[in-house]
Amino acid sequence: MCGIVGYIGDGQATPILLEGLKRLEYRGYDSAGVALYEDGKLQIRKTKGRLTALEDLIKRECVAGSVGIGHTRWATHGEPSDINAHPHVNSKGTIAVVHNGIIENYMYLKERLQQEGYKFVSDTDTEVIAQLIDYFYKGDILDAVINAVSRLEGSYALAILSTYEPDKVIAVRRDSPLIVGLGEDGNYLASDIPAILKHTRNVYILEDGEIAVLTRDKVTVLDSLGKEIKKEVFEVKWDVEAAEKGGYQHFMLKEINEQPKAVRDTLAGRLPDGSDVKLDDIKLSADDINKINKIFIVACGTAYHAGLVGKNLIERLAKIPVEADIASEFRYRDPLVDEHSLTIVISQSGETADTLAAMREAKKKGSRILAVTNVVGSSVAREADDVLYTWAGPEIAVASTKAYTTQLVSMYLLAIKLGLERGTITEDYAEMLKSELRQLSEKIQKILDNQDTVQKLADNNYTAKDVFFLGRGLDYSVSMEGSLKLKEISYIHSEAYAAGELKHGTLALIENGTLVIALVTQKHLYDKMLSNIKEVTTRGAHVIAVALESMREIEKAVDDVIYIPDCAEEVAPVLAVIPLQLLAYYMAVARGCDVDKPRNLAKSVTVE
Amino acid sequence: MCGIVGYIGDGQATPILLEGLKRLEYRGYDSAGVALYEDGKLQIRKTKGRLTALEDLIKRECVAGSVGIGHTRWATHGEPSDINAHPHVNSKGTIAVVHNGIIENYMYLKERLQQEGYKFVSDTDTEVIAQLIDYFYKGDILDAVINAVSRLEGSYALAILSTYEPDKVIAVRRDSPLIVGLGEDGNYLASDIPAILKHTRNVYILEDGEIAVLTRDKVTVLDSLGKEIKKEVFEVKWDVEAAEKGGYQHFMLKEINEQPKAVRDTLAGRLPDGSDVKLDDIKLSADDINKINKIFIVACGTAYHAGLVGKNLIERLAKIPVEADIASEFRYRDPLVDEHSLTIVISQSGETADTLAAMREAKKKGSRILAVTNVVGSSVAREADDVLYTWAGPEIAVASTKAYTTQLVSMYLLAIKLGLERGTITEDYAEMLKSELRQLSEKIQKILDNQDTVQKLADNNYTAKDVFFLGRGLDYSVSMEGSLKLKEISYIHSEAYAAGELKHGTLALIENGTLVIALVTQKHLYDKMLSNIKEVTTRGAHVIAVALESMREIEKAVDDVIYIPDCAEEVAPVLAVIPLQLLAYYMAVARGCDVDKPRNLAKSVTVE
Repeated sequence: MCGIVGYIGDGQATPILLEGLKRLEYRGYDSAGVALYEDGKLQIRKTKGRLTALEDLIKRECVAGSVGIGHTRWATHGEPSDINAHPHVNSKGTIAVVHNGIIENYMYLKERLQQEGYKFVSDTDTEVIAQLIDYFYKGDILDAVINAVSRLEGSYALAILSTYEPDKVIAVRRDSPLIVGLGEDGNYLASDIPAILKHTRNVYILEDGEIAVLTRDKVTVLDSLGKEIKKEVFEVKWDVEAAEKGGYQHFMLKEINEQPKAVRDTLAGRLPDGSDVKLDDIKLSADDINKINKIFIVACGTAYHAGLVGKNLIERLAKIPVEADIASEFRYRDPLVDEHSLTIVISQSGETADTLAAMREAKKKGSRILAVTNVVGSSVAREADDVLYTWAGPEIAVASTKAYTTQLVSMYLLAIKLGLERGTITEDYAEMLKSELRQLSEKIQKILDNQDTVQKLADNNYTAKDVFFLGRGLDYSVSMEGSLKLKEISYIHSEAYAAGELKHGTLALIENGTLVIALVTQKHLYDKMLSNIKEVTTRGAHVIAVALESMREIEKAVDDVIYIPDCAEEVAPVLAVIPLQLLAYYMAVARGCDVDKPRNLAKSVTVE
Repeated sequence: MCGIVGYIGDGQATPILLEGLKRLEYRGYDSAGVALYEDGKLQIRKTKGRLTALEDLIKRECVAGSVGIGHTRWATHGEPSDINAHPHVNSKGTIAVVHNGIIENYMYLKERLQQEGYKFVSDTDTEVIAQLIDYFYKGDILDAVINAVSRLEGSYALAILSTYEPDKVIAVRRDSPLIVGLGEDGNYLASDIPAILKHTRNVYILEDGEIAVLTRDKVTVLDSLGKEIKKEVFEVKWDVEAAEKGGYQHFMLKEINEQPKAVRDTLAGRLPDGSDVKLDDIKLSADDINKINKIFIVACGTAYHAGLVGKNLIERLAKIPVEADIASEFRYRDPLVDEHSLTIVISQSGETADTLAAMREAKKKGSRILAVTNVVGSSVAREADDVLYTWAGPEIAVASTKAYTTQLVSMYLLAIKLGLERGTITEDYAEMLKSELRQLSEKIQKILDNQDTVQKLADNNYTAKDVFFLGRGLDYSVSMEGSLKLKEISYIHSEAYAAGELKHGTLALIENGTLVIALVTQKHLYDKMLSNIKEVTTRGAHVIAVALESMREIEKAVDDVIYIPDCAEEVAPVLAVIPLQLLAYYMAVARGCDVDKPRNLAKSVTVE
């Protein structure tokens, strides 16, 4: 995720761009920049750091002009730095581009352009776009843009400004959001509505493949073939605060609903046809992989729960013993880590103090480190030997949702990779799993489309005093995450239990009306789970099951069921957690809790 | 633990003995037997099974007489069987012995007697006593007994009946309880008061080394040198129910208070001088031990918590990777167990269905099995390759206490054994740990002597709605057990947390007045724990710390402190859990809960 803005009109562009970027900082904040057209030249100001750093820079090095584009970045390709900040320009300095998204074939395009003599200065995929437009420029900037974007694979929202036709800002999108604001004194462009709400409430919401050409007094929208289309004006009724949350009541709900995209982005380019998986940033050779005799997965909180699923999957697929451990415990217990170990650390922010400390401990003992993180250039990413990025975009809500599902997806990618390299799974099996992964995004959407059901259950049960989550195997790991969500935001004391373990003590807590959430997505454990459900229903528990669509007969055994689409049981965690996130969210809302900022908690825990 | 009874008087002995044994069944119930003197001969009736099996046998094969001894067994040496049931007799059938305790040097004595031509029919240590008395018999049975017991090492309460002087029952004890009842129509002998309460309330409570000679109208008590001493008559004021619990309000409290003895018994004979540990029933050779490349510890509930301590200790001392797992999860996750694995299963009853199933799964995969159990001849013990018995005696209360501490002790014994065999610890270190283990029993007693403090804290806090237990490292494992105890018997929803992990989510549940129990016994984690305590106190939590005596400065940081005696941090779990057991107990009592039989739970879970 990144934020982009654009302006062309009668006023000064700089304050409008900076104000717009401020409203988009939730989409990224590791670097920022603007490009304005002034006196026949493009003036670029860009810098690493939050938006205030850019403001300071502009104070020192003023820039004027009534047309410009701007960007606030959440690094994907290339760490946060002045050079990698947007806008990016072609070598001649005549075309400036800001970009939100990931160009999957940028390496191929970059090499081709290098053969043509193009020189690159940054590590980004975006610079390739500027050069590619240059390559296609034959006197008509719009033609050049249309030609260039037709060669791009991946996701993008782009704003382009050139010295060739400085009275135009061109915008185009695919799989990344972009809107056009229709103002009195000019026209606007932005990733999201809050950026322009101060100036206008009339917007075009661009669809995939559409191209908008903004001039001072007009906006033309073309389809991907270059034919003009008539767009309907959408009148924004939200206030600024609601607009920042995309119309959702809370960032958490917004982020829950972003999961189809986050999962798709994290898989993008990594699942080529056939059985292979492609993990660019991982330099582990086949030989390295075969030498690993033990894997440690070390993390905290939600990321630790993703690690538990990782343990299960890696052991199952790659037959390497895996130990998942809480970072604050791992660090102080002198674990048996050595140079044949691989330590996988998982941290959304990449700055979690406990995880960092544990990682350094493992490194000192000679272990190779593989980081799974959401933040390019974070401490964890910098210090690890290999990095597998989740592409969830910035997560604002304290309670993690889309970071978790993308961490899960990373575990699958890794497990398949390791299994294939070690020859412990067949190619057929790998292809089956890949096909299941490709379907996840759509299946998550299907669950989200049905969130009313979950909300209704939440409204009926939000007064619960204690809640127990039950599951076996992978369902147990997901239970732990479901329970943590509920605790974090609703302050209900909930606890997850391996379903078979309940009778060894905690069953004493079950009394008439106790709420139990039972996860039933593992077909081979279905009968055992039914027995455990029976144990609690006979003690009077009120049971909500999360089950596969094909398990309709479970309705006889429980009070309520939330169904998730059928899937291979290996990938069920990614689907099963969605209703649990929603349940926690709606129960917390019903209880009147401050969902996005739960008491006592911080988003990223940078103290031990 | 076993139960013994004796009677000599004017009435029929059989019903008196059977009635007495019934009252002692809580001490053991795997086999039972009686010996009576009738027509110049000893009549023995004994059988495997509960007391009803003996009653049936006696109905079929009547036995009469006014002098006799009886026994209900909890197997230690030799599995439950007709042959191993007590009484045991010498080969001539002239001396019958019933025994409660463990003779540590019985193998040595047995071999010596075999060299003298004695033949043995059972696997028990008790048969050795009968033969040894025979060996020393030179015309005076009392002399023979005194000579024999002076050769015994270990613990025993004995009742002896012989054809040589059939108007006498001789009784002697060391480290196992024994009382004499002074009746109108005869005199009585028993392991515990309830067995004789129907007949008399006047008793002698025998002390270590004392010998009692019972005749029909008199009881003489001698000291270990054979000199008569004057005993004071103790008048029992308890009713039968209270007497069964040794005067305690509940079995659980009785069993908590039995822990010094249970720990001592479990260590008995296993800690010879020097660095070695002696584990008779473990046939693992040095070679076997060196070939182990992975250990799995598999158990349920409380036993699983002991396994977590085992993991820490074995990894620390023997440098073998250990994975502790919940049995019901282990079984179904296709764990990476093979012929180089050692699987340690822990089960008090030895019949826990989940543990049994997990054990069979591991066995099928080629793993060697080592069982830690409290019940000789149990399924787990029979099917394992090696057995390490805990000598806690029967545990009646559903909430396990003395079984846990003896399981912990077993983990230490194993860890030291493995560490020595693999050369990963020095002999000095082993000796240090052994010395710490030897001191445990006394230190537990010191904590128990101070239980008023804990009771007071329980009385002040029993209305708590939610309780959190915090600890790091070994303290975390103990926290889990403390939390489980509280849940099981008080029905308070409590949860244990790795102290460093709390801030990654659950901290949201801490509000003004929330009760937090913080374990602080690990010196190297002291500062970190203090920070975590600070995190909760600043949110208003009421904190009770369990800390070492030498950590007085902790008083400044918390509301209350329960001190345990200073000790090496490795063995601290055995001490730290005692106040947690007491706290759970007294809070449950204050809440009016049925402590010994908590709702929904069974003592030994023989279903999955």
